[in-house]
Amino acid sequence: MNNPQLNKHGEFQHLLSTEGLPVSIIRDILDRAATFIDTSDRLQIKNVPLLQGKSVFNVFFENSTRTRTTFEIAAKRLSADVVNLNIGSSSTSKGETLLDTVDNLCAMHADMFIVRHSASGAAHFIAKHVAPEVHVINAGDGRHAHPTQALLDMFTIRYYKKEFHNLSVVLVGDVLHSRVARSQIHALTTLGVPDVRVVAPKTLLPKHVDKLGVRVYQDMEQGLKDVDVVMMLRLQNERMQGALLPSAQEFFKHYGLTRDRLALAKKDAIVMHPGPMNRGVEIDSSVADGSQAVILPQVTFGIAVRMAVMSMLAGSKA
Amino acid sequence: MNNPQLNKHGEFQHLLSTEGLPVSIIRDILDRAATFIDTSDRLQIKNVPLLQGKSVFNVFFENSTRTRTTFEIAAKRLSADVVNLNIGSSSTSKGETLLDTVDNLCAMHADMFIVRHSASGAAHFIAKHVAPEVHVINAGDGRHAHPTQALLDMFTIRYYKKEFHNLSVVLVGDVLHSRVARSQIHALTTLGVPDVRVVAPKTLLPKHVDKLGVRVYQDMEQGLKDVDVVMMLRLQNERMQGALLPSAQEFFKHYGLTRDRLALAKKDAIVMHPGPMNRGVEIDSSVADGSQAVILPQVTFGIAVRMAVMSMLAGSKA
Amino acid sequence: MNNPQLNKHGEFQHLLSTEGLPVSIIRDILDRAATFIDTSDRLQIKNVPLLQGKSVFNVFFENSTRTRTTFEIAAKRLSADVVNLNIGSSSTSKGETLLDTVDNLCAMHADMFIVRHSASGAAHFIAKHVAPEVHVINAGDGRHAHPTQALLDMFTIRYYKKEFHNLSVVLVGDVLHSRVARSQIHALTTLGVPDVRVVAPKTLLPKHVDKLGVRVYQDMEQGLKDVDVVMMLRLQNERMQGALLPSAQEFFKHYGLTRDRLALAKKDAIVMHPGPMNRGVEIDSSVADGSQAVILPQVTFGIAVRMAVMSMLAGSKA
Repeated sequence: MNNPQLNKHGEFQHLLSTEGLPVSIIRDILDRAATFIDTSDRLQIKNVPLLQGKSVFNVFFENSTRTRTTFEIAAKRLSADVVNLNIGSSSTSKGETLLDTVDNLCAMHADMFIVRHSASGAAHFIAKHVAPEVHVINAGDGRHAHPTQALLDMFTIRYYKKEFHNLSVVLVGDVLHSRVARSQIHALTTLGVPDVRVVAPKTLLPKHVDKLGVRVYQDMEQGLKDVDVVMMLRLQNERMQGALLPSAQEFFKHYGLTRDRLALAKKDAIVMHPGPMNRGVEIDSSVADGSQAVILPQVTFGIAVRMAVMSMLAGSKA
Repeated sequence: MNNPQLNKHGEFQHLLSTEGLPVSIIRDILDRAATFIDTSDRLQIKNVPLLQGKSVFNVFFENSTRTRTTFEIAAKRLSADVVNLNIGSSSTSKGETLLDTVDNLCAMHADMFIVRHSASGAAHFIAKHVAPEVHVINAGDGRHAHPTQALLDMFTIRYYKKEFHNLSVVLVGDVLHSRVARSQIHALTTLGVPDVRVVAPKTLLPKHVDKLGVRVYQDMEQGLKDVDVVMMLRLQNERMQGALLPSAQEFFKHYGLTRDRLALAKKDAIVMHPGPMNRGVEIDSSVADGSQAVILPQVTFGIAVRMAVMSMLAGSKA
Repeated sequence: MNNPQLNKHGEFQHLLSTEGLPVSIIRDILDRAATFIDTSDRLQIKNVPLLQGKSVFNVFFENSTRTRTTFEIAAKRLSADVVNLNIGSSSTSKGETLLDTVDNLCAMHADMFIVRHSASGAAHFIAKHVAPEVHVINAGDGRHAHPTQALLDMFTIRYYKKEFHNLSVVLVGDVLHSRVARSQIHALTTLGVPDVRVVAPKTLLPKHVDKLGVRVYQDMEQGLKDVDVVMMLRLQNERMQGALLPSAQEFFKHYGLTRDRLALAKKDAIVMHPGPMNRGVEIDSSVADGSQAVILPQVTFGIAVRMAVMSMLAGSKA
């Protein structure tokens, strides 16, 4: 079976998920992202006109100002032309099929699509369909994947911990509904992290999560013990009102990251969060603003990682 | 009476409708659009920085992501600065008059307005009002006109059929509510197409449509007989629920373009559609995806034609 | 106490309000804005690539197409990368705090924030929080301030009247709810205008308005007598339905600017309005379109003044 992320020459063609992405490509992305960061003074992103004359279409079937903005900035740093399309309000509401919409955008001279969609598999579906010279980046599809988020997380871990082969990493929170968690787990195991843990209440754990190569904890104190990296997940507001969770307060009581709990991890453990944070729900403000948090560098690294992915895709032969 | 699309020197000043547009200007637009297309490999649009330093304002009083995007891409290919204004949510709701809004945008240093409005005549009204150095392009006004769509259709016909003077062309569908149909009919007759036909149920035909120089058919089989070009029109969803049409299924039964019906046209007839398509309503999927359809090239040509119009307007003396 | 608009070296760091802004900085802004205007032919704004490679974020927590557009155009004239964020629909609705949103945007490599917010003090709050290399411009916060509007008004006055020290200026209308009025009054008094008047019904006057150094009139005829400049204020539609005003007609009868009333001012008096105008409420059309109105030049000058502010901020040392 062909790898949908590679072209017929085995080169990097689409970024759809960290699952199945060769470790060599992941390492190339992280290496290239590093070249876009200027650490001489404050953490800065360089301007590198590698996508001059290329058209990048932000095609968001699901609204996300934050993610759209990071891709827009990354593309502009690369000198691409960026077109933002909020498709929720557009042709799909006029009865057009998804493939017709995509065909039309291709015909408008798009070189690259950044796709966000509420349906799992949407980016794969589009990638299978586009012409061989067009590249697709998945910016989040349903509960399935959010690969650039996972890659920027890997970049952040490598930036602070240098290596992956000697790490203990824990993911905490709503694993069940999180495309971020899925993408993170695949990236961590691919990069050879020997100890990947998951902490969540039973109701927020997917079935068979242990088959992904992680150790499952329902007790947070045990899960945090001696880890190098704590990756918090966002608890979606809409989950808090359902049957899955008694209340935000109750969740915080058992799974919120407080200073006391963080003290169980290694002394130099870093704390990550994909944002936006719910302070007092997943994470206490003292930790979010504390010295171990690397949540804002994650955002900056996200620009560099997205630049790396885009410029690598644009450089691959069709 | 002055031609509102020409300046006092008789030069091309605004694109408001194909009606009254001199045939020499239509031919110039098609010729120039051809220079923006690179056919060496795949169909490509060139970057031509003819509008460097110019400000193009997409002023959309009626939402249309697709049309707005094609103009935005065309302007960016020409290196213009593009500003998107969705005016529905803006000053008009604050009680400002249309002319005050336009005056304000002019004062913000706009060189060109792309105007979409639900009222017929809005673009003419604005064109009459702006300063002599400002150009207006009508991107659709009510049921009146959509000239760039008609021009890209003419480009498509010429691309595949070379000449106009020997063609039979049929328009099929909701002529009554279609600004596209109006603009197409004027362009076709201006370019000398000897046989322009219209096929529609009585309820979707404007009164006196025959005065536009077309032959009217209510039977689709007769209308399609031996034509070179089939131009399908979009059936607006909102029409299907009214008294004008029994149902989408019923419409498709009598006026949908199927393979069998298309076989009545010439063997090398091309099939066009302005999009977005309602598959199974106006057109069968086997035809939409078939070898005679040129629906996606229409979109690509649309970028080139819009670049041609913008660069010609910007080059005219005020 | 430190001046929140200056950095630790006493240099211009943020533009938050005209209150407390040193007169030397106001004069510098007006002088620099003048250099961006090309008066050789028609009133034109020059392209000056002073912000090449800089990222300007339009962060609008409150929608305002007009103000957003003027900043976007000004930034593009300076060759900045512009990112538009309509935050109403974004992270704040996801439970994120304002400061977390701002931190995230900073981490995305923003060099400058243009902030519009419905809460008074929001821009100050953000300016206090950002890193020292980031600049904040207040594009309107609650009832508090709208400094770029006031500065473009000052530019307009100086353009037509040359000097400030010999002028009589009157503000007419809803002073109570107007951030524009507050910013104008501070700018006028700072620049040494000896006679600043306010005309409004009692219900639309803030308490202690006389402490701002203005003379208060409830009779419009008296307030307009022999002034050099008439600055009309916009009457917000929502005020007209409340208990504060009997009706729009009643307001116009007593406080609308008609030709007859304008005749009480000096013969060469200029008429200004921040827009959008309510014709027939604050101002009669004969005046709005008359020879003394400078309402559209205000808009053009607004681009130049915003360019001046942005380029001065970007040039200041952190």
